[in-house]
Amino acid sequence: MIQVGIVGGTGYTGVELIRLLIAHPDVEIKMITSRAEAGRAVSELYPNLRGACDVSFSAPDIKTLSKCDLVFFATPNGTAMKMVPELLAEGVKVIDLAADFRIKDIEVWQQWYGMEHSCSDMVAEAVYGMPEINRAEIAKARLVANPGCYPTAVTLGFMPLLEAGIVDPGSLIADAKSGVSGAGRGASVANLLCEATESFKAYAVNGHRHLPEITQTLTTIMNKQVGLTFVPHLTPMVRGIEATLYARLTDTSQDLQALFQARYENEMFVDVLPVGFDPETRSVKGTNLCRMSVYQPQGGDVVVVSSVIDNLVKGAAGQAIHNMNIMCSLAENTGLTLTALLP
Amino acid sequence: MIQVGIVGGTGYTGVELIRLLIAHPDVEIKMITSRAEAGRAVSELYPNLRGACDVSFSAPDIKTLSKCDLVFFATPNGTAMKMVPELLAEGVKVIDLAADFRIKDIEVWQQWYGMEHSCSDMVAEAVYGMPEINRAEIAKARLVANPGCYPTAVTLGFMPLLEAGIVDPGSLIADAKSGVSGAGRGASVANLLCEATESFKAYAVNGHRHLPEITQTLTTIMNKQVGLTFVPHLTPMVRGIEATLYARLTDTSQDLQALFQARYENEMFVDVLPVGFDPETRSVKGTNLCRMSVYQPQGGDVVVVSSVIDNLVKGAAGQAIHNMNIMCSLAENTGLTLTALLP
Amino acid sequence: MIQVGIVGGTGYTGVELIRLLIAHPDVEIKMITSRAEAGRAVSELYPNLRGACDVSFSAPDIKTLSKCDLVFFATPNGTAMKMVPELLAEGVKVIDLAADFRIKDIEVWQQWYGMEHSCSDMVAEAVYGMPEINRAEIAKARLVANPGCYPTAVTLGFMPLLEAGIVDPGSLIADAKSGVSGAGRGASVANLLCEATESFKAYAVNGHRHLPEITQTLTTIMNKQVGLTFVPHLTPMVRGIEATLYARLTDTSQDLQALFQARYENEMFVDVLPVGFDPETRSVKGTNLCRMSVYQPQGGDVVVVSSVIDNLVKGAAGQAIHNMNIMCSLAENTGLTLTALLP
Amino acid sequence: MIQVGIVGGTGYTGVELIRLLIAHPDVEIKMITSRAEAGRAVSELYPNLRGACDVSFSAPDIKTLSKCDLVFFATPNGTAMKMVPELLAEGVKVIDLAADFRIKDIEVWQQWYGMEHSCSDMVAEAVYGMPEINRAEIAKARLVANPGCYPTAVTLGFMPLLEAGIVDPGSLIADAKSGVSGAGRGASVANLLCEATESFKAYAVNGHRHLPEITQTLTTIMNKQVGLTFVPHLTPMVRGIEATLYARLTDTSQDLQALFQARYENEMFVDVLPVGFDPETRSVKGTNLCRMSVYQPQGGDVVVVSSVIDNLVKGAAGQAIHNMNIMCSLAENTGLTLTALLP
Repeated sequence: MIQVGIVGGTGYTGVELIRLLIAHPDVEIKMITSRAEAGRAVSELYPNLRGACDVSFSAPDIKTLSKCDLVFFATPNGTAMKMVPELLAEGVKVIDLAADFRIKDIEVWQQWYGMEHSCSDMVAEAVYGMPEINRAEIAKARLVANPGCYPTAVTLGFMPLLEAGIVDPGSLIADAKSGVSGAGRGASVANLLCEATESFKAYAVNGHRHLPEITQTLTTIMNKQVGLTFVPHLTPMVRGIEATLYARLTDTSQDLQALFQARYENEMFVDVLPVGFDPETRSVKGTNLCRMSVYQPQGGDVVVVSSVIDNLVKGAAGQAIHNMNIMCSLAENTGLTLTALLP
Repeated sequence: MIQVGIVGGTGYTGVELIRLLIAHPDVEIKMITSRAEAGRAVSELYPNLRGACDVSFSAPDIKTLSKCDLVFFATPNGTAMKMVPELLAEGVKVIDLAADFRIKDIEVWQQWYGMEHSCSDMVAEAVYGMPEINRAEIAKARLVANPGCYPTAVTLGFMPLLEAGIVDPGSLIADAKSGVSGAGRGASVANLLCEATESFKAYAVNGHRHLPEITQTLTTIMNKQVGLTFVPHLTPMVRGIEATLYARLTDTSQDLQALFQARYENEMFVDVLPVGFDPETRSVKGTNLCRMSVYQPQGGDVVVVSSVIDNLVKGAAGQAIHNMNIMCSLAENTGLTLTALLP
Repeated sequence: MIQVGIVGGTGYTGVELIRLLIAHPDVEIKMITSRAEAGRAVSELYPNLRGACDVSFSAPDIKTLSKCDLVFFATPNGTAMKMVPELLAEGVKVIDLAADFRIKDIEVWQQWYGMEHSCSDMVAEAVYGMPEINRAEIAKARLVANPGCYPTAVTLGFMPLLEAGIVDPGSLIADAKSGVSGAGRGASVANLLCEATESFKAYAVNGHRHLPEITQTLTTIMNKQVGLTFVPHLTPMVRGIEATLYARLTDTSQDLQALFQARYENEMFVDVLPVGFDPETRSVKGTNLCRMSVYQPQGGDVVVVSSVIDNLVKGAAGQAIHNMNIMCSLAENTGLTLTALLP
Repeated sequence: MIQVGIVGGTGYTGVELIRLLIAHPDVEIKMITSRAEAGRAVSELYPNLRGACDVSFSAPDIKTLSKCDLVFFATPNGTAMKMVPELLAEGVKVIDLAADFRIKDIEVWQQWYGMEHSCSDMVAEAVYGMPEINRAEIAKARLVANPGCYPTAVTLGFMPLLEAGIVDPGSLIADAKSGVSGAGRGASVANLLCEATESFKAYAVNGHRHLPEITQTLTTIMNKQVGLTFVPHLTPMVRGIEATLYARLTDTSQDLQALFQARYENEMFVDVLPVGFDPETRSVKGTNLCRMSVYQPQGGDVVVVSSVIDNLVKGAAGQAIHNMNIMCSLAENTGLTLTALLP
């Protein structure tokens, strides 16, 4: 049994990690930390876990965490970087679900996240935890930077086109829509049911923190600077991201459906839908799947991709466990064979 | 492996049976019937099942069904009664999720369901499939009448009080609220998102089909005619029933919390919450649990119970699988150890 | 033009007052106060008011408020009582939408609201602002205590039965359901979309502040102590209250439909539906209407009433304006002839 | 008083016309037709209209309609074209809220709408009813083709850029999101609450009927063929369209905010938000407003516009009444000064 710790277990990413890990056959949750809720039963905060999880929150404590084989950070940005060096030194593997280790360029990171990076030397070592790109590096990693939710949906959707080199990399557009759980569990007026339901809006149009993350990955894939316009939107539901991607084809003769199917043929968590079907976020709710369709409207030179994930699973906790499985040499889908509830 | 068939797999109860059975370690789904969708892949209708279920709908056919060990009917009322005699004769066990075998008094059934009963002789044999009451009979049954959704939430909530004989059985009130999935997957204006969201209403106040079913069970428990007022309501969400129950205490000295905890101590699917907690439907969404709390406001002579279930699981497909497990001598919770998604 | 002030304009009751008053032909809003938002345009906080309201929030100031003809308090409980004496002394009429002046028994008030009452002498003078009961007193009042949302729906539903003296007043039950806007606009985890949507629950079963308010009014109507069990529920929508009321008929021979229609024949904001229709909260959304139906299931001795209102209008701001119209000798429906949006 | 008729009053566009027209000071609704509901009170179908509208549905009848000054068609596509010639001959003005007269190229219309056009000669006469473009022509028109919902949001958002000639017209992208009411009130499984809530998806990516309509208008504005990729999405709410528009700037030196404000300075139903605000669909719910913001992310050469409307008002019934006001020489905002409900 792999002994795992969860630092910051009170947010939505944390509870999703717990939900998935208690059903994982090879994992034992050793500790779940929360400074604010220390001493309280996890199931008191999350009534769905009554009878399923008897752990109580404890204060974060490096010593106890050091006895874990692997520690997940489901903390606000800027927390993991303070504890990671010590844990790595103790031989503990770390998966950070926040953004501390995602951006290789420290200057860029500091600019977008508005703080000093306290362990910039480890950023270089950290592996960006998107198995569909970095499987081999993840297997050997001590420290994995789990991708953001938008970056997961957007990157997987653009990847086959960029790898095939058949689109203009300078004019990519990603119009992404997220459920409200992406904003987390903090008390805020903007995310009250009465404020967020029955409404739809764009936000952060002039710049969202996930823009440099996506650009970095796409640029790495292309080995060439990409130009991306990324507009996130808030949609009145709990879970799910849909990203509609637009690119200009430099070669309109390709069979795009075949290209996408071939690219993801061996990926168990990416499902390219048959022609004629549109991905719906509900079809992946609670699962680690990314479903997508590719279109070439009116046979023109614009390619459209629609890519859907559950932001809390494939976009966070599920991808983290996928990474853990790879790091621990388990079958990749262990504990992740879930079926979405429908309706 | 238990070979099962599902007759009527296109409705919400049907797809929920499929979702639960594909994760059940001891079951193989042999056929899923639908006259209208015969030949179509189940996963085409239910995109959440892509990659998880490769069965296609087939036309209902007694011969093939006869090769199953057990057949679930997830059909409209009046369908099962036409096929059950033949299946039982072939040695197949049957669980009917519709209402054909729930009401013992054929006259009463015919009046509420507006049709002739075509195999009234089997109604007497059928066991009412509420394990918390009829576990032993279910274990020996060939034919189980799976309870209705409202009756499950209401009966479990009243049961400890009635069994203890501490309430006036003549003035019971059940104010129940259901999500829209209780109305099924049929195309109807009333259940369009635009009609049903952001609104709340009572319906069928003068008489709902679940009234005689609940009354029959409570009367059996009391061994005495009960008087019940039952008012269902439509609430703007997909899944979940909450029943608020009111009764007049004839003995106000009892420790009601202790009474409820004792009654359900050994029931793995009934969870009596500690004092100070209110059951929320989301805490049981997708699971086979009934959660409840009992209150005695201002220490008076009115007892209030709030009982919540997922109408499609504990109120339909999950309870049916619980019954199957008992009928097939499996551990009762096999395939039913689910954790609700939250948020 | 009546010059009005609104103290505490940032909450949902406040913005609803503003929305209704800007369309009121005889009113001019002189000031809207908010300590926290002083200086900010109201339409910045409430984008629906852009172009419709050019007032900015100002700090509460008795001097300026004293120049108003009438002041609405849309403040938390305990605020109005500190400012009302001075305003009345200056000849300003006051309508308090909070609870400071609703309960005549100061002891009871202090117990339920957990604070000292600072101007208990004015409680006696205050008129309970339910026009269907107290029209004449309201017309003469300087100080009106606007009823709570639940009390409005519950009291109007029970009233015809109690006035007719045909139910047992000792065993009344009110099972009420409210949209989330009833909880206000404060940042709180419990009211986040991700916490409150797609779920339903009872709360405050052992005692809600509206219980003594309802009991007081019903007792006054009956001129006899009533026994009421009141259970509120949270329903996943923004606006609307539905109250299902249960009482035991002491006389089952009455034509209840006729009784209700006669009682509300001359009330323009109470609509008794014809037999065969169930009230839906959406049918009154944004309006000052209370719609209700009365039922006698199976012709028995239990009477059921379903009563719906918009908690922010008839249950708060709309009823307050109705009271203002009466206090200022305007036609009662001035500014209140609204049609609900549907869908 | 203008005597108006509504042909096809049972759909969502029809009921919205009724809601707005009963509050219009210069209009009397003479008849509302529905073959299916003839004889039934309109308020029986739409409970929000109880007490506000005492008209009953009648069978469509040219003779009676001919006595109206103006007739609105809120019918399925293909209905208006059969009755319009006769009505115009009788001197009745017509506003068609369906698509029969929107597309000037009959071939294109027939291809996208899949039927023969029965009065193609009148298509040339019909004026496309977008006041912000065609005010003068509308004032003189006998027959107005009311724009589609998506075309309204998209066209108004692109217009300032195209008129100014500062974007590449060959690579326009419109990523539009609509609430479910856009799909109408027909009974369909896809639009059930249980199917459409808590999910998000793109649809009709390869071609939606509103594409040729938008392209026609934008091409007319530019006087040059435009290239547009248009992807509609279904979002889990009732009302509202948000369109996020992308274009490549050929001149990046312009003050886009000033450009947009100048263009719409005199338009009472288009509201350009100040810098720093994002349009939300809820801020226009129930109103005839289009709110928009313009962005130039990172000061690059991509311009982004976010434009929101209520699909049933500015995108249908409200814009139709705006057109009626112009055709009948009334103040343009008569009956349209509405404030959105919030929350």
